[in-house]
Amino acid sequence: MELREAVSEDLRRLGGIDVSPDNIVITAGGQEGMFATFMTILNPGDEVILLDPTYFGYKPIIEYFGGRIKRLGLSLNEGFRVDVEKLKELITNKTKALVIVSPDNPTGSVIDRDTAKAIADLAKDEDFWIVSDEAYRTLIYEGEHTYIYRYAPDHVISINTFSKDPGIPGWRLGFIYGPSDAVPKLKLAAEEMTYCPPVIAQRFVTMYLRSEVRFRHLKYIVEEYRSRRDAAVKALREYLPEARFIVPRGSMFVFADLSGYIKDSERLAELLLEKFGVTVIPGTYFSDIYRSAIRISFVVESIDRIVEGIRRIAEAVSEYGRSL
Amino acid sequence: MELREAVSEDLRRLGGIDVSPDNIVITAGGQEGMFATFMTILNPGDEVILLDPTYFGYKPIIEYFGGRIKRLGLSLNEGFRVDVEKLKELITNKTKALVIVSPDNPTGSVIDRDTAKAIADLAKDEDFWIVSDEAYRTLIYEGEHTYIYRYAPDHVISINTFSKDPGIPGWRLGFIYGPSDAVPKLKLAAEEMTYCPPVIAQRFVTMYLRSEVRFRHLKYIVEEYRSRRDAAVKALREYLPEARFIVPRGSMFVFADLSGYIKDSERLAELLLEKFGVTVIPGTYFSDIYRSAIRISFVVESIDRIVEGIRRIAEAVSEYGRSL
Repeated sequence: MELREAVSEDLRRLGGIDVSPDNIVITAGGQEGMFATFMTILNPGDEVILLDPTYFGYKPIIEYFGGRIKRLGLSLNEGFRVDVEKLKELITNKTKALVIVSPDNPTGSVIDRDTAKAIADLAKDEDFWIVSDEAYRTLIYEGEHTYIYRYAPDHVISINTFSKDPGIPGWRLGFIYGPSDAVPKLKLAAEEMTYCPPVIAQRFVTMYLRSEVRFRHLKYIVEEYRSRRDAAVKALREYLPEARFIVPRGSMFVFADLSGYIKDSERLAELLLEKFGVTVIPGTYFSDIYRSAIRISFVVESIDRIVEGIRRIAEAVSEYGRSL
Repeated sequence: MELREAVSEDLRRLGGIDVSPDNIVITAGGQEGMFATFMTILNPGDEVILLDPTYFGYKPIIEYFGGRIKRLGLSLNEGFRVDVEKLKELITNKTKALVIVSPDNPTGSVIDRDTAKAIADLAKDEDFWIVSDEAYRTLIYEGEHTYIYRYAPDHVISINTFSKDPGIPGWRLGFIYGPSDAVPKLKLAAEEMTYCPPVIAQRFVTMYLRSEVRFRHLKYIVEEYRSRRDAAVKALREYLPEARFIVPRGSMFVFADLSGYIKDSERLAELLLEKFGVTVIPGTYFSDIYRSAIRISFVVESIDRIVEGIRRIAEAVSEYGRSL
C-alpha cells in the first residue's frame, strides 16, 4: 500500500494525472504486467493491433492467449508517427486492444499529444483497450511524456517498470494502472502468477520515489543518456552515412535502417556478435518491414565504446555487406 | 547458472539425487513454479488428481488452464496416507497429473517410501505427471524426506521454494526440476511470466546453499519448530480434547478437525480473527471433507503465544460453538 501511494504521488507530480492507489497494481517487473494484462483482457480470437516496429515482448504473449495480431506499419520518413486514419482501417468488432509503446522501444519516438488524444477518442468510440507501455516515461530528451490515461481513463491499462528508472532490472519490480473494473482482475492474475512482488524492491523503490535523490538522479541520467545519444547519432552519421534513422527523443535506442548496406539484419547481428564483439538486436525482432534495421542501445556503454561499436558496425558492413 | 549448480549440489547432498543444473529452472517463488508447471503440461479437459485435503493454491491454477479436478479423499484415521488402490480407481485416459504435497500443507503428513514408489510406478504405467510440491522438504521432525523424482525421473516435476528454508518468502525465489523434455518449456513459461527471477535473491541463496551456515541454520530451525510443534500438540490435547489431528511429522502446520465442537470452520476463523485476535485458515480452503477443521501454524509465533492462541480457540468454541 505504501508503494502504491508513492507511485500515485509520483504520477501526480511528474505527469499531473490523478491515479488512486486503488487503481495501481504492483507487479514483479514490467513483463509480469504485460502477461497479467493480456491474461485479463484477452479471449481467443480477439484482435490486437501492434505497431510495426514495436517491442518484441508483446507478440508471444498475445499469441499464447489466442489473440490475432494485426500490424500497423509506421514510416521512418514520417518519424514513426501513428497515422490515426490508417489505424481506423484496422479496427473491427473483434478489436480488443492496441499496444502503444511511448517513448518507443526500438525507435525512440515519442507520441505527441494530438495523436494521443485522437487515439484515446477512437478507443472510447470503438471500445477497445489502449495498452500503454510507459517503461521509458522518465527517459525523454526533448519534449515531454504524454500520459494517455488522462484522455481515456476507462480504456487505458498502463504498463510500467522500475527497471529503467531507477535502473534496477534484476530486482523485478513494476506497476500497472487502469480503471476500477479491470484492476481487481489484474491483481488476481499477478497473484496467481507470483503471489507478490519482491518485498525488498518494494521498500527500496518506495524510498526512492519519495526521496530528493530521485530528481537529482533523473536529471543526471537524462543528461548523461542525452549526451550518449548525441554521440551515437554523430557516429552513425559519420561512419554509416547511408543509415536511415530518427534521432530518438526518448528511451535507450537508435533504430537504424541499414538497407543501404545489407539485407539480413539477423545475419549481421550474428556476425557482429561473433567477429566484432558488438551486440545489437536485429530489426526482424521488432518488425516485418524493417528487416535490414538494427537496434543500438546507447545507455549501457561509455561514449568511447558506443562510437567504437558503431565504427565496427561500419567495418562489418563494408567487409561483409554484399553477402548479408 | 551458479545458483542452478548450487541447487544441484544441494539436492545431491541432502537427497542423494542426481539432478543436472540443466534440469533445474529457477523461478520467482514457488507460486511461479506452480503456475508455469500447469501452463506447460495442461490442456483444457485434462484431468488432475488432487488429494483432499491439500494446499489450496493448486485448484484455481488448474481450473484457469481448463483442467478438471478429481479429488482423492484421505482419512485422518489412517494418518492422511495415500491409498494407492483408491488412487488407481481415479485414473482415466485423461489423467494428466497428480499433485503430491509432502511434507504436507495443511496436515504435516510425510509420504513414506513405499507409497512414493507405488505412486511412481503407477505414473510410469499410466503415463501421468507427478507434480511433487516439496516446499517443506527440509522441515521434517521425524523420519526423512522422500525425493519421489528418484523413482520416476521422467514423470516428476518437483516444485520448490526458498520461502520456508532459508525463510525468505518476500524475496520471491524458488526452483523446479524435471525431465529434459519438460524443462525448456517450463523455462520459457517462467520467462514469459517474469523475464527472470530476482537477482539479489539468487546471489544470496547461492551463498546460503554453499555455506556452512546452512546446516547450522537448518538444525536450529528444525529443533526450534519441533519444540513449537510439541507445544501446539500438547495445548491442543489440553484445551481441545475432542480435536482430532495427526502429530505433524513435517511442514509448519497442525490440521485439527474440530467437528466435535463446531460445523463451520469459515465462521470460526472469522470469529477468531475478529473477536479473539487469532488467525487460522479454515479447513474448507483445503478440503471438501474436513469442513470443520482449521489449520494452525506453529512456526511464526513463540510457544507462549501458540499456547495462548489455542487456549483462545477453546474459549471461542466453548462460547460460540453451538452456533457455528
